[in-house]
Amino acid sequence: MILDRIEQLLKSKKGNLNYSIPKEWLPEGYSGTVKLRDRYIFVDPYEYGSSIVERITALAEKDTDYSRPLGRIRNESGNSWINSAIIYGSFVRTTTAYSHHDPEFFSDLDSQEYSESGTFLKMIFMLPFLSKMGFDTLYFLPVTSYSDKFKKGELGSPYSVKDFFSIDKRYHDVLLEDMDVEEEFTAFVEAAHVMGMRVVLDFIPRTSARDSALILKHPEWFYWIDASRLDEYRPPKIEPLGFDQAKVETLPIIYSNENVKKHLSLFSHSPAKLYPEKWRDFVASHDGTESFLDELVSEFGLVTPPGFSDWINDNQPTWDDITFLRLYKDHPTESRKFVSEDQPPYVLFDVVKSSFFPGSEPMADLWESIENIMPFYNERFGVDGARLDMGHALPRELELRIIRKAKERDPSFAIIAEELVMGNDEKARQSGYDCILGNTWWMEPRIDEGKFKELVYKVLPSLRLPTLAGIETPDTPRAASRPNGRKFSRFATILNYFLPNGITYINSGQEVFEIQPMNLGLDNDEEGRYVLPPNDPFYGKLAFFDPYVLHWNAEEDMIDLISLLSSLRKSNFDLLSAGNLKLMWGNDLKSAGLFYWNGTKGLLTVANGDFSSMKDFHIDLGYHTWKSEHKVSWRLKGFDAHSEWNVGGDFHLSLGPGEVAVAEIK
Amino acid sequence: MILDRIEQLLKSKKGNLNYSIPKEWLPEGYSGTVKLRDRYIFVDPYEYGSSIVERITALAEKDTDYSRPLGRIRNESGNSWINSAIIYGSFVRTTTAYSHHDPEFFSDLDSQEYSESGTFLKMIFMLPFLSKMGFDTLYFLPVTSYSDKFKKGELGSPYSVKDFFSIDKRYHDVLLEDMDVEEEFTAFVEAAHVMGMRVVLDFIPRTSARDSALILKHPEWFYWIDASRLDEYRPPKIEPLGFDQAKVETLPIIYSNENVKKHLSLFSHSPAKLYPEKWRDFVASHDGTESFLDELVSEFGLVTPPGFSDWINDNQPTWDDITFLRLYKDHPTESRKFVSEDQPPYVLFDVVKSSFFPGSEPMADLWESIENIMPFYNERFGVDGARLDMGHALPRELELRIIRKAKERDPSFAIIAEELVMGNDEKARQSGYDCILGNTWWMEPRIDEGKFKELVYKVLPSLRLPTLAGIETPDTPRAASRPNGRKFSRFATILNYFLPNGITYINSGQEVFEIQPMNLGLDNDEEGRYVLPPNDPFYGKLAFFDPYVLHWNAEEDMIDLISLLSSLRKSNFDLLSAGNLKLMWGNDLKSAGLFYWNGTKGLLTVANGDFSSMKDFHIDLGYHTWKSEHKVSWRLKGFDAHSEWNVGGDFHLSLGPGEVAVAEIK
Repeated sequence: MILDRIEQLLKSKKGNLNYSIPKEWLPEGYSGTVKLRDRYIFVDPYEYGSSIVERITALAEKDTDYSRPLGRIRNESGNSWINSAIIYGSFVRTTTAYSHHDPEFFSDLDSQEYSESGTFLKMIFMLPFLSKMGFDTLYFLPVTSYSDKFKKGELGSPYSVKDFFSIDKRYHDVLLEDMDVEEEFTAFVEAAHVMGMRVVLDFIPRTSARDSALILKHPEWFYWIDASRLDEYRPPKIEPLGFDQAKVETLPIIYSNENVKKHLSLFSHSPAKLYPEKWRDFVASHDGTESFLDELVSEFGLVTPPGFSDWINDNQPTWDDITFLRLYKDHPTESRKFVSEDQPPYVLFDVVKSSFFPGSEPMADLWESIENIMPFYNERFGVDGARLDMGHALPRELELRIIRKAKERDPSFAIIAEELVMGNDEKARQSGYDCILGNTWWMEPRIDEGKFKELVYKVLPSLRLPTLAGIETPDTPRAASRPNGRKFSRFATILNYFLPNGITYINSGQEVFEIQPMNLGLDNDEEGRYVLPPNDPFYGKLAFFDPYVLHWNAEEDMIDLISLLSSLRKSNFDLLSAGNLKLMWGNDLKSAGLFYWNGTKGLLTVANGDFSSMKDFHIDLGYHTWKSEHKVSWRLKGFDAHSEWNVGGDFHLSLGPGEVAVAEIK
Repeated sequence: MILDRIEQLLKSKKGNLNYSIPKEWLPEGYSGTVKLRDRYIFVDPYEYGSSIVERITALAEKDTDYSRPLGRIRNESGNSWINSAIIYGSFVRTTTAYSHHDPEFFSDLDSQEYSESGTFLKMIFMLPFLSKMGFDTLYFLPVTSYSDKFKKGELGSPYSVKDFFSIDKRYHDVLLEDMDVEEEFTAFVEAAHVMGMRVVLDFIPRTSARDSALILKHPEWFYWIDASRLDEYRPPKIEPLGFDQAKVETLPIIYSNENVKKHLSLFSHSPAKLYPEKWRDFVASHDGTESFLDELVSEFGLVTPPGFSDWINDNQPTWDDITFLRLYKDHPTESRKFVSEDQPPYVLFDVVKSSFFPGSEPMADLWESIENIMPFYNERFGVDGARLDMGHALPRELELRIIRKAKERDPSFAIIAEELVMGNDEKARQSGYDCILGNTWWMEPRIDEGKFKELVYKVLPSLRLPTLAGIETPDTPRAASRPNGRKFSRFATILNYFLPNGITYINSGQEVFEIQPMNLGLDNDEEGRYVLPPNDPFYGKLAFFDPYVLHWNAEEDMIDLISLLSSLRKSNFDLLSAGNLKLMWGNDLKSAGLFYWNGTKGLLTVANGDFSSMKDFHIDLGYHTWKSEHKVSWRLKGFDAHSEWNVGGDFHLSLGPGEVAVAEIK
């Protein structure tokens, strides 16, 4: 294992007690020297690191190649593991960022002797912590190389992908000297697999960084505009239409619009097509260089255009750090008649939505590349699953080919659809996805509007494909920043472990009640950016675009709660099917009772979603079980966990505001 | 302050990271280097110690002499502080014992480079921990010099007092080099006072070690028997009488008994009286030596006799490590006629119970010495209060003089009566005591027999002197070893913070759910000695007689709970009077509702003493408050502490087995 090499390397060195780590990262029963300063912990990074790696390698079975996908290590013939998964969603750059040199004073990341931004090595350091909380799946935002060009904050976004076949070198840890980041990622996957955790990655096949590394080899995969007119470039306003997507019947309106005509005039053919020889020279002289776009602009007067929303008259500004990939050699079939014969390839609301407006001639080699992304990571690094970004915006054929190809290679590979609409469950299922992202994070906080109740009682039980069940995602506000704060976060976190057709999803930081969002993409606005106190070093910072460190060393957290919930979910997962579900108190919008009963045992979850009043519940188990005596073993309630006692067919239970009680029933 | 000297001394030295401390002793926000090994912590004792002492001295006000009693520092004119006290009861030898060299391997205490048995310095180390839990009073078992002679286990008992005016040298800590133990005790008292904690000591005026240091100076203060007949010495069996105490009417039976006659024949006059010159020589040649008894026996053929119970026909063996002090120069007045003129001073059931059977001529200089014990510790060391051991067995006059004298000197001095009978409250009050020990530890576990309910509803509200409210004492079984274990301990610990006329008492070790008793004196039997697993190094060990280390590094504890309870008691103490108390649910033996209400605010405690069933309580606050709306602020309950919400005049509340809920009410 590469992991063994890391263990040896760390063991061979001795450092100083000046590497601070969050207290949460110090495993229980850790052996080693630590220096304490107020609430901060300092270790010798080599001692600390080698001790953790040693813990992990000690668990490895001999002769097992842990760099293979876990499903293949275990000879699994399917991917049902995703249904019972407990997922920790993380952006490695952020989750493992820490001011190791001085946890109180945040200076530019990586300006110190230690890697302060996220690295795979530090993700290994965190595995005992994540394992203790019971996670069995780690989902990462893209780890592929990303661009700094046209960045929106101090750092580039992980969605501004330079090359989907290369891992970003910035995840290398200086503690590992000249080790290669791909080896480090492999070692991380090995370590996760040794600990029984799967690794799922986010992939972005629809867009790319505007200075994508692929430009030099495949300029025809990109759209091009006149660089001198870049400032004129914006999604054209189409006044006669409202806020809508492009439709066949509105194409005449769109294409006859003057703004659209002006927009189309900005586009150009690729520099390779216009100046084949000059391009050959340019490529030859820039082979292997990372920053070539400025020179390309000055030599050819062309540039890749920013992306924008596929909604007409959307107020969003252009997405300056990405550009669309050109999926067809020709214009959309439906739109072809509206543009002139010599119109160069262009970006417009219809083109972007290529699932509805395909062309007739696919960019075959690009499609092949895209299809190979997941198999590549599965084969090369043992990655166990993927989220497909904007899969629904891809040509249907390409989407299906991507999914099919990934599963052909590894039947245990699972794919999460970026599908927020619960009603598209069946469509996603037919496409071959294994679950959808869903919108639990949107419905759960809307208790007073009845959305919470609708979610639990109607939407989830009838889903035909499971959904992630999470109260926050990298795009949404943090649960602890919603009304009722930590109380609400705890409420929703508990529920998301026991929902029918729900796959538990915890967003990194949620366990320490982080309130700063990572991005403002969903259910948020610019105000939501400023939830920290103004003197906080990360006030207004977004993980997607800025240096951002979670507020570790938390005085209050959900770590033990999450551990308990994970063990409860695991030991009762056989019960958690919609078929076993009996629901109680349908009329009260603010409270929910979920009782799973399989004829011999059950799991009861009672939630008081009223955050200002106590509620008295009359629980009639006997109505569902036909029994007049039950053994009730409360696992989550004011009194001790594991207290078991007998109750009759029905009994009273009072819950405080926002309280959720969970019991095993026999 | 001597404390400053200790700070300087510790600061001036550098040690190694090989001094283990329980994790509980590491203060929050500690700054310093620690070595972790599994669940154990190692520090440099000098860095650790100086850091703690520095924390404490930083709190001291300039120009305040903290070696004075806290009441005098604060100019208090009375001792009402004892009523609201939150007491941590501790035996310093035990509470601060730890295998510093290797917490997993307990070897003979003090055989290592560190003081492994208890020391005052380590008691200072524990102050931040005790302060965090909210204790304001530290009660110690005797710290006076104790004897190893005739010891019952591996160590001498603290009740085998060699000299009530000297502090046992074994409480010296080797970290302090050649510092004197009396200075160390002074420094400890200073530190406690700086942190706002009072120090209360246990004193033993009725008995003494059989090789008491006072023998050389005052041989007439002791009883003497023929050393060659020591093996015949035992409490004489008096068959015609049952298990009873001596009474005037049974004296003829007692003294005519053959066993008693034989018993009386064992006694002798003191060696000083029999051999005045030889005694002078012996004293001269043994002045200042500690172990002289063996030589005394061989030279004079005399020895001090063991003690025994004042109950006739008690099955208890003789108390070999102590002897009674001779409080009168003559025999008991009532008994005189039954013994011959030349009968030497003797010990018998009547003599021992000198409160009922006084002589006519007090041993005046002994009485004076005894009266001076508390004033001495108050004056010399700033001790704030005392428990008087077996005060009720002293001649009434002496008992009153002891109490009067202590309070004359320091009106803030408080005295706890060793009175277990609640009905003797008024008598103790009239004697001048400030509270009694009481028997909450006996009544609280007897829930099914109705004793718990009787205690809370009848006994306590009508007390005329407060009682300690504790679920364990150094003599009783540990709460966590009672039926329902930790659940019961938690139940009783919470209640003891909110009982009318109750002074909260926590027995050292209770906070970490210790199960091994310290002694078997009360409500226990020989079986109660063997509650630990047989492979535990302290299996069968009793703190009174053996090396004994608490089971620190606990995985579960009540530390945070106790902190919360202490702050609740403090902020609501004005409410906790019997006059404000409304009791609810008088008929149900196993549950209790205590509602204190002063007309504007209240404190509600609801306890389900049934450890196998959940209970649904109907709480009618309005009946007591005449209000139809209340703000209920739960401070202890399944849901978040500090959640406040409105309830009507009455509401339902369900509690799990053994659960106690506490709320502030407005």
